[in-house]
Amino acid sequence: MAQKPSIPKGTRDFSPIEMARRNYIFDTIKRSFHLFGYKQIETPAIENLSTLMGKYGEEGDKLLFKILNSGDFLKSVSEEDWRDKNLPKLTNKMCEKGLRYDLTVPFARFVVQHRNDLQMPFKRFQIQPVWRADRPQKGRYREFYQCDADIVGSDSLNNEIELLSLIDSVFSELGINICIKVNNRKILSGIAETIGEADKIVDITTAIDKIDKIGIENVNAELKERGLSDGAIEALRPVLTMSGSNEDRMAVISVMLRDSEIGCKGVEELRTVINGFDSLGHKCEVEADISLARGLNYYTGTIIEVKAKDVEIGSITGGGRYDNLTGVFGMPGLSGVGISFGADRIYDVMNQLDLYPAEIGASVKVLFVNFGEREAAKCMGYVKTLREGGISAMLYPDSAKLKRQMAFADSEKVPFVAIVGESELADNTINLKNMIDGSQQKLSIEDIVSLMK
Amino acid sequence: MAQKPSIPKGTRDFSPIEMARRNYIFDTIKRSFHLFGYKQIETPAIENLSTLMGKYGEEGDKLLFKILNSGDFLKSVSEEDWRDKNLPKLTNKMCEKGLRYDLTVPFARFVVQHRNDLQMPFKRFQIQPVWRADRPQKGRYREFYQCDADIVGSDSLNNEIELLSLIDSVFSELGINICIKVNNRKILSGIAETIGEADKIVDITTAIDKIDKIGIENVNAELKERGLSDGAIEALRPVLTMSGSNEDRMAVISVMLRDSEIGCKGVEELRTVINGFDSLGHKCEVEADISLARGLNYYTGTIIEVKAKDVEIGSITGGGRYDNLTGVFGMPGLSGVGISFGADRIYDVMNQLDLYPAEIGASVKVLFVNFGEREAAKCMGYVKTLREGGISAMLYPDSAKLKRQMAFADSEKVPFVAIVGESELADNTINLKNMIDGSQQKLSIEDIVSLMK
Repeated sequence: MAQKPSIPKGTRDFSPIEMARRNYIFDTIKRSFHLFGYKQIETPAIENLSTLMGKYGEEGDKLLFKILNSGDFLKSVSEEDWRDKNLPKLTNKMCEKGLRYDLTVPFARFVVQHRNDLQMPFKRFQIQPVWRADRPQKGRYREFYQCDADIVGSDSLNNEIELLSLIDSVFSELGINICIKVNNRKILSGIAETIGEADKIVDITTAIDKIDKIGIENVNAELKERGLSDGAIEALRPVLTMSGSNEDRMAVISVMLRDSEIGCKGVEELRTVINGFDSLGHKCEVEADISLARGLNYYTGTIIEVKAKDVEIGSITGGGRYDNLTGVFGMPGLSGVGISFGADRIYDVMNQLDLYPAEIGASVKVLFVNFGEREAAKCMGYVKTLREGGISAMLYPDSAKLKRQMAFADSEKVPFVAIVGESELADNTINLKNMIDGSQQKLSIEDIVSLMK
Repeated sequence: MAQKPSIPKGTRDFSPIEMARRNYIFDTIKRSFHLFGYKQIETPAIENLSTLMGKYGEEGDKLLFKILNSGDFLKSVSEEDWRDKNLPKLTNKMCEKGLRYDLTVPFARFVVQHRNDLQMPFKRFQIQPVWRADRPQKGRYREFYQCDADIVGSDSLNNEIELLSLIDSVFSELGINICIKVNNRKILSGIAETIGEADKIVDITTAIDKIDKIGIENVNAELKERGLSDGAIEALRPVLTMSGSNEDRMAVISVMLRDSEIGCKGVEELRTVINGFDSLGHKCEVEADISLARGLNYYTGTIIEVKAKDVEIGSITGGGRYDNLTGVFGMPGLSGVGISFGADRIYDVMNQLDLYPAEIGASVKVLFVNFGEREAAKCMGYVKTLREGGISAMLYPDSAKLKRQMAFADSEKVPFVAIVGESELADNTINLKNMIDGSQQKLSIEDIVSLMK
């Protein structure tokens, strides 16, 4: 009995229509990447575990997919190892390689490994799948694509402004209304410093982050629980009750942080980025959001997050500036700024709002019906002419029943069906049926080529 | 001490210029796939080992990369298993998943799993990496891309003709001169049958395959060694000394196989395919090659192989018709025909003949030099205008020394450098330098947009 085939949980097959939609998104993003001068790289799916381990925390190490060594994978495993049954130790002895967990660590490894061949600043993009042995759940997969753009080797805030423009470009091309939220890690440090609780920055930002959901009284209660003094909580009030325009907000925070060097620097950077972006003109909304605190341990300057305005969903893109991408691989002091487009969430938003062009599902523009050998031979010539004109076309390969061929045309969402029977053979014409409005025309192949163009 | 980063042997990083070249090839192939009505699918990199094992022979099973189960991978391993140290058995108990070894088995699995959602005939293409734990050597990698197009659910030879057209389309777009060699498995069966050695078909085809390299006398000696009778060897002579046009060859083989039913069928099929393709007109050479015998155990009808005419290299594309793609997954009788473009070899051919368009290495068309804050702000507006016009452009992010910025432009192969200094700021012009001929012009941004289009 043959097995019933399936795929591992948390992985997906992408059908033609899903691929057409995903390609539409990726191609749109890629077009913007190219317009902005980002260059594509690819790194192998398989990395040495020595490259990956210890980069994503203890939990991350567990979530790495490890590949069993080829050949005698027990070579380095002793009887004692076996008796101990220490899983990490055994893994270490049986597995040298693992699957890429994200694109950031491989990028850092790439930069260090090829440092002598790279001209700085280096603007790269990378669109590849990553793998995580996470518990699969709705919207979370074990194999999924990441789509990252970074510029390394330049401290200029012009890069931040350009990334905001890139976000604006991608989402206006896709037709998604967005709000870009921007913050600066130095502002968060400044706040913690100013209220005299520099060591509690994580507690403070975690609490600030909840203000919209639970309200100021609950946030304050939580802060007290986490050990903040009443004075500090009171001092934090202006941040939590901030409102008005970006200018208003930045003014409030600027006053509050006037005595914090790092805070002032943060405000100045945020102002430069937002004003610089504003002065270029843009289609999306941009908001200075002091509560934004993603990747707190990683980002050192600007923090960016993108929300879709018309769909309830988490952030669909995010990123920021980091100061030390490559230190762990022995190349300290390389600063960069980057963003990651959340392909799966963008796909969900596009699907919910149905933002795809109408023609996206069709396999070809013109399907020729097959009435038998003589007609088919003629049609194959026509098909060739259309393809040479850049118009996708095909002949139904078998001379099946007309009903079946038309059902095929329907299911393939083919907009035009071309019929060549006895009479069309005789006078070198083609009966072209518009599948959307049902109209028919007798045309020459030249007519059809011009019509389709 | 930080580790010196590296990647596993047999894997590759692709730099921006390598990616640009590879994308040029893949995009060209994809464009033809779409023109011909092939629809893209993707399957997960990770498949269940139950899907993969036993599909590639005993050797293939060993070359599969296996993924250690997450969590307690020793759960099913008994003390006895450990004592036995039977590697395949232990692997089986510790690993449920493995990496895709080719695109054919996942495609077969996909077709069976989604049979109720697929309209036949189903024309699919798939471009994804595969992994094999092979010993790496020149031109052989452990991670490499395959690029397959298949049509399943149709027995018509029109599909074969179309595949030859697809090959012609792809390689004429790429600018590679090719010869398509075509054979039919049924002819090989007919030959073995006709000379009375039906059970020695593998020996016969292996020997025939060497005729160009070792000559007829050596081939005959080898056939004798493999147990063929003198009569059979003599009867084979017309095949080994075949020459002339496709028509001549097919006439010879047609006469020879006149009493073999399967042989006659094979000749008829080959003739239909070659004549059908010829009648459409094409740019490449096509050759009926009776010695062609690739994938003998898999193909059941037409066999196709493509050779580059201007480079010494193995076949750069190959394929054929198979009768039972999905039987192993419980869906018998599904016939199909497909081809696989050898991406790495095509890449080598393209590199050797330098067939890429000149502009392929450039990161942007126009690089704006950065002279400081005021100039940069102006330039960012210009850059935005160019990008909105579909012209790739960027500002050098830092106001670094001019020499450094020009070196960057050089290394990025930027064709135009735009200079906006004091005087250009004053009169709203841009000094545009052509990096190829060194000429300079003072232009408005509108001039540049039209010039670039």
